[in-house]
Amino acid sequence: MDREVNLKVLLANRPVGYPTEDDFDIVESPIPMPEEGEVLIKTEWLSLDPYMRGRMNDQQSYADPVQIGEVMVGGSVGRIQQSRAPAYHVGDVVEGRTGWQMYAISDGSDIRKVDEDLGPIQTSIGILGMPGLTGYFGFLDVCKPVPGDTVVVSAASGAVGQVVGQIARIMGCRVIGTAGSDEKVDYIVNELGFNVGINYKTENVGKALDEACPVGIDVYFDNVGGLVTDAVLDRINTGARISVCGQISQYNLPEPEMAPRNMGLLIRSQSKMEGFLVTKYQNRFEEGRQRMAYWIRQGELKYLEDVVEGLQNAPRTFIGMLNGENFGKTLIKVS
Amino acid sequence: MDREVNLKVLLANRPVGYPTEDDFDIVESPIPMPEEGEVLIKTEWLSLDPYMRGRMNDQQSYADPVQIGEVMVGGSVGRIQQSRAPAYHVGDVVEGRTGWQMYAISDGSDIRKVDEDLGPIQTSIGILGMPGLTGYFGFLDVCKPVPGDTVVVSAASGAVGQVVGQIARIMGCRVIGTAGSDEKVDYIVNELGFNVGINYKTENVGKALDEACPVGIDVYFDNVGGLVTDAVLDRINTGARISVCGQISQYNLPEPEMAPRNMGLLIRSQSKMEGFLVTKYQNRFEEGRQRMAYWIRQGELKYLEDVVEGLQNAPRTFIGMLNGENFGKTLIKVS
Repeated sequence: MDREVNLKVLLANRPVGYPTEDDFDIVESPIPMPEEGEVLIKTEWLSLDPYMRGRMNDQQSYADPVQIGEVMVGGSVGRIQQSRAPAYHVGDVVEGRTGWQMYAISDGSDIRKVDEDLGPIQTSIGILGMPGLTGYFGFLDVCKPVPGDTVVVSAASGAVGQVVGQIARIMGCRVIGTAGSDEKVDYIVNELGFNVGINYKTENVGKALDEACPVGIDVYFDNVGGLVTDAVLDRINTGARISVCGQISQYNLPEPEMAPRNMGLLIRSQSKMEGFLVTKYQNRFEEGRQRMAYWIRQGELKYLEDVVEGLQNAPRTFIGMLNGENFGKTLIKVS
Repeated sequence: MDREVNLKVLLANRPVGYPTEDDFDIVESPIPMPEEGEVLIKTEWLSLDPYMRGRMNDQQSYADPVQIGEVMVGGSVGRIQQSRAPAYHVGDVVEGRTGWQMYAISDGSDIRKVDEDLGPIQTSIGILGMPGLTGYFGFLDVCKPVPGDTVVVSAASGAVGQVVGQIARIMGCRVIGTAGSDEKVDYIVNELGFNVGINYKTENVGKALDEACPVGIDVYFDNVGGLVTDAVLDRINTGARISVCGQISQYNLPEPEMAPRNMGLLIRSQSKMEGFLVTKYQNRFEEGRQRMAYWIRQGELKYLEDVVEGLQNAPRTFIGMLNGENFGKTLIKVS
């Protein structure tokens, strides 16, 4: 039996440093009713992603911050429960940015029908959704890899990193991943086909990179920033391409970390560093989805999900993910 | 009367921090004799450029370091005095990397005949040589400016910066330069046509940029690094393009300067930062030379030279340039 209330997770406080569960409020409210032109969606899966940490700050970034008392932002996939919009029918699976809540109203402008033939519906917010497309376009379009390139990916077992590393392997690159546990390192090498995995918590990253990349590094796909990135940048080849996708090591620091200035290495190596948001490639999302769905069907591209049941567990799970406790794409099974 | 000896400036010590005159040896030696296939060049002008500081370190960079006791590297222009190579005749003006010395031998592979119709011969190592071409390609090719862009150039009155700013003006950009004295600021605004000049030594650069760039910064051509660059990067627009040409604020620090990590801003602004060396564009140098020579003839492109007479003054002048004491392109009139 479905509960007859809407469960929502609201932002309660703006965290300084790592968020705690007190920074979230879990509240119940009546299930909203769609008006003319709107639909009611029941969330089935919620995606938890590092970018959400930025939205908890009172700081204009590329998107508005979540306000105190507002529902936390997030991508989700669910089914239409009631429709007063001609384009949607009860039972349609839709994906959108409806946030950390069990029921949501949409006027159809912020949701998209999901093709259930491409895979289990939660892939629409995982490997075939924002994180997967981030890896696909951020690697292929920003890094412009060619076969034979030595590619390093940080947070390599995460939602984005696992995609980047496998596409690199598919196209004939040598691929090295960094991750935060031996279990993750084992997974990327033995399941995903990375050439080498480095546990940045227990190994000397610089030394391990020297061994793993005897001819230097051509491409770096960065999800983490900080010391791992410093070690990679010290080893880039002439003409290296660096895509700056995330900086999770920095998101929970109350003050920016101090580090030696190193822009000069971009000159000596004649390298390019580009930050990007996946929305840049919005008009090509279908291309990415179809290609990745094909690789998945061929068994070339695998994906690992870290599923936690129950929306009430979203805050705890999100905090764990920021600490690297997830193993694969973090998902909340909402209903 | 020419002196009947060769005067050379050798690297005597590897400096830690700013070089001093003790780090150079000025020596006399016999004028060398060309062998079959070689020419003897008498240097007329020597270019002094910030990159030479890097060559004084015992560190492999994009080029080999100068060894202790070797002639300092540098671009120069001179005349053929003796030729035993069929392609060159006595009196030909040639430009090459013959170093800090009055006479040099070349087998012709490292020199190029200078077209004296394009301008005074020292322009072949200035605005129509390496520094000018660095500005031309680094701005047009790396920054990909479009009319209406707000462009910031650091070290704006220097050999490279003056070219960048004027090309930006020619193509309809709004252009702001930073420089280290009121005289330089006055020059770039009133002589070169920059929209705004900022004296980074006396003004609050952030505040001055806020005023000068009310709609943010689209392009940054960086010659300096450090705090000026931090202030610019804090104000870049979505899709900004940053070309990293030099980091002169960092070249004389015994240890890298510590600074807050800021790679995250590349993500939010979806911006690109690229380091480059002008040699990348070697096969297009003639294009750059011809275009700039045309603009010079039209009065659209001016250039300012800071000329010091006498090779024996090169060390002192070089040290002064590293301290920002030059005003325009630094040249030594050798003979």
